[in-house]
Amino acid sequence: MHVLELTKPDGRSLTLYAREPIGEVGEAPSPFRDPLGRSPHLRRHPLRDEWITYAAYRQDRTFLPPPEYNPLAVTTDPEAPTELPVGAWDVAVFDNRFPSLSLGADEVPASVVDTAPGIGKCEVVVFTQDRLSSLGRLPLSHVELLLQVWADRTARLAARDDIAYVLPFENRGAEVGVTLHHPHGQIYAYPSVPPVPARMQQVAEAYHARTGRGVLQDHIAKELDDGARIVYRGEHAVAFVPAAARYPYEVWVATIEPVATFCDLDDAQRADLARALKTVLMKYDALWDRPFPYLMAWYQAPVDGRPHPESHLHAEFYPPYRTRDRLKYLAGTELAAGWFAMDALPEDKARELQQIDVDIDA
Amino acid sequence: MHVLELTKPDGRSLTLYAREPIGEVGEAPSPFRDPLGRSPHLRRHPLRDEWITYAAYRQDRTFLPPPEYNPLAVTTDPEAPTELPVGAWDVAVFDNRFPSLSLGADEVPASVVDTAPGIGKCEVVVFTQDRLSSLGRLPLSHVELLLQVWADRTARLAARDDIAYVLPFENRGAEVGVTLHHPHGQIYAYPSVPPVPARMQQVAEAYHARTGRGVLQDHIAKELDDGARIVYRGEHAVAFVPAAARYPYEVWVATIEPVATFCDLDDAQRADLARALKTVLMKYDALWDRPFPYLMAWYQAPVDGRPHPESHLHAEFYPPYRTRDRLKYLAGTELAAGWFAMDALPEDKARELQQIDVDIDA
Repeated sequence: MHVLELTKPDGRSLTLYAREPIGEVGEAPSPFRDPLGRSPHLRRHPLRDEWITYAAYRQDRTFLPPPEYNPLAVTTDPEAPTELPVGAWDVAVFDNRFPSLSLGADEVPASVVDTAPGIGKCEVVVFTQDRLSSLGRLPLSHVELLLQVWADRTARLAARDDIAYVLPFENRGAEVGVTLHHPHGQIYAYPSVPPVPARMQQVAEAYHARTGRGVLQDHIAKELDDGARIVYRGEHAVAFVPAAARYPYEVWVATIEPVATFCDLDDAQRADLARALKTVLMKYDALWDRPFPYLMAWYQAPVDGRPHPESHLHAEFYPPYRTRDRLKYLAGTELAAGWFAMDALPEDKARELQQIDVDIDA
Repeated sequence: MHVLELTKPDGRSLTLYAREPIGEVGEAPSPFRDPLGRSPHLRRHPLRDEWITYAAYRQDRTFLPPPEYNPLAVTTDPEAPTELPVGAWDVAVFDNRFPSLSLGADEVPASVVDTAPGIGKCEVVVFTQDRLSSLGRLPLSHVELLLQVWADRTARLAARDDIAYVLPFENRGAEVGVTLHHPHGQIYAYPSVPPVPARMQQVAEAYHARTGRGVLQDHIAKELDDGARIVYRGEHAVAFVPAAARYPYEVWVATIEPVATFCDLDDAQRADLARALKTVLMKYDALWDRPFPYLMAWYQAPVDGRPHPESHLHAEFYPPYRTRDRLKYLAGTELAAGWFAMDALPEDKARELQQIDVDIDA
C-alpha cells in the first residue's frame, strides 16, 4: 500500500492510497477557502443516557454548487476546485468539511442537560476515481486496498487518547438519503463507545466470560453448519443472512475466526474478506438488475488499547427494500420500542441471494 | 366513557368507545371470513440480545381491496364489509388481522438462534369515524376520550401474565410509510419490555434510587424553569422540544408530576394532557399549513403489577422532516451506532413552534 499525506488550504487533511506508487500529484484542493468554523457540541439525553451531537453548520454554508458539480471528482479546473487532486491514487480519505464531530471542538454551551465538546472525527472515504463505478464493481485488489485503508484509518485514530470507537460505513442510494452518487463511504470516530456497539460489547464480553469463545464466532459456526442462509463460504471469510435478521436482505460479512479490528487481519483473511464482500455486493446489484441501496456498517473492537478477544470484526448490511418495489419503513415498533418486526423470513431472503450466480474474478 | 365489546366473525375482538351512550350497532363486521392463520414467532439476536418478531403472513393474504376501499370506514354495503359497524361510537379498537404478535401464537420453529412463540397483541385504534379528520382536529373531549381508551386498553392488557409492556403509537404520513390515511394509531403489547423502554427504565430506576425523584420529573422542572423550548405550559401538563432532541421538531408531551401509566391519570391531569397534546398537533399542522407527519410514541411503566415511582407517562414525537422540504434520513451514525447527529438546535426548532398561535378551544 502506498500512502501520501497532504493538507488542504483550509487546514483539513487528505490522504491518498494506492496499490502502485502514486508519483506526482498537485496541491491538495478544497472547494472552501476559510478555515473550519463553528464546532460541534454534545448533549446528553436524560432518559436514554446517551450523547447526541449538534453541528449547526448549515447556517454558515455559503458554497452553493451547481447541480452537476461533483466535489469527489478530481480537480481539472483550478477555478472550480473539488476535494481531490489529479494523480494515480485509488482511494482517498479527507476530513468532512461539515463534521458532526471534530478533534478541534471546544464549544460547550450551557444547557439544562449535560454538555461536552463534540470531540471526534468525520472522514470521507472516496472508493475510486470513477464516479460511475461502485464498491462491488472494483477489482478484488482494489477492495483489498480499501480494507487496508480502513485498517490505516483505525490505527491512526486509535493512537489518540480522545477517540474510543471507529466506525466505517457506507450509505448507498437515494432511498437512504444519499445525494452524491460518486462511490464513497464515511468513517466516524467517536469520543466514547456509541450505544449500539456498546450493547454489542456488553453481550460479547458476557458471552466470552462465560464460554471463553466469541458470540459471533459461535454463531458463524452454527450458520456454516446449518448452511441454509450462507451467501459466501471461503476458507477464512463468510457472508450470510443472519437467522435473526432485522432487515429484509440483511447480510453479515465476517472472518470465520475472531479478529478484533481491521488492523488484526492477516493477508489471507483480508483477501478472503474482500472476496466475501465483493460477492455480496455483486449479488445485491444483480438481484433486481439495478444498484441496490443499503447501509453498510463495519463493527470492530473499541480502540482503548486493551485486548478484545470477545470482539469480532464484521460488516452488517441494512437494505431499505422489503421487495423490489416496497420499502421497509422503520416505524412505531422499530424506532420507538427497538423491537423489530419482519414479514419476511431470513431463509427466504437468503435463498433469493443464493440463487444469483456472480463471477467475482471476472 | 361508554364501552361496547363485540366479536368479529373471524374471532377477532372489537371494542367501541364513546362519550355518549352508544345505543344500537349492527354485527361486528370483518373483511375476512377465515379464522386467523399462521402465528408469529420470535428469534433472539445473538449479538444484541434482543427479540425480533417474524410474521410471514403476506403469503396468506388473499384479500385484494380496490384502491378506494377504506377498511376503517363503517360498513355500509354488507357485500363489502369493513372493520367497523355503523353506530354512535367515537373511538374503536380491534385486533390487527396481520399481527406481529398474537396471544394465540404457538409456533416455535427450530433455529440456530433462540426462538419463542410471538406472544403479544397488536391492536388498531381508530380515532374517529371521519376519515378526513385527524387527531389534532378532534374536540378536546374526544382527545380526552382517547386518553381514557389508552388507559382501558393498558388495564386490560396489564391483567394478563404474558404481557409485560404496552406501547400506544401513531405513524402519520406517507413519509413514515402509512398508506391508510383514515386517522388511526396502534397498540403493541409485548411479552417482555422492549429494548428502548428497557433502557429508559434502567436509567430511570438508577436515577430514582440515587435521588428519590423521577428523571423526567426533574428534567421537566428544568425545562419549565428555562422556558426556551416550552411549547405548552398548563397547570398539570407540559409540551416542549427537549434540550437533547434527536429529531428536528421532536416534542415531548407529559404530565408535570410523574404518573406511571394512563391508568393513573386523574381527571384534571387527563384534561390538561389532552390540551397539551392537541396544542402540539395543531402547531405541527399549522407550521407548513399541511398535515405534519410524525411517529408519536407513548411511554409508560411496564405492566408487571409492581409500583413504578420512577416511571413517567409521556409522548415523544419523531417528525421525519428537517425543514419544509428536506427529510432527515436515519443513516450510518444513527442506525449503526445509535449516536444521533443533528444540524438543527432544539432551541431554534422550539422557537418555530412557539411562534405559531393556535386556538385549541375553537
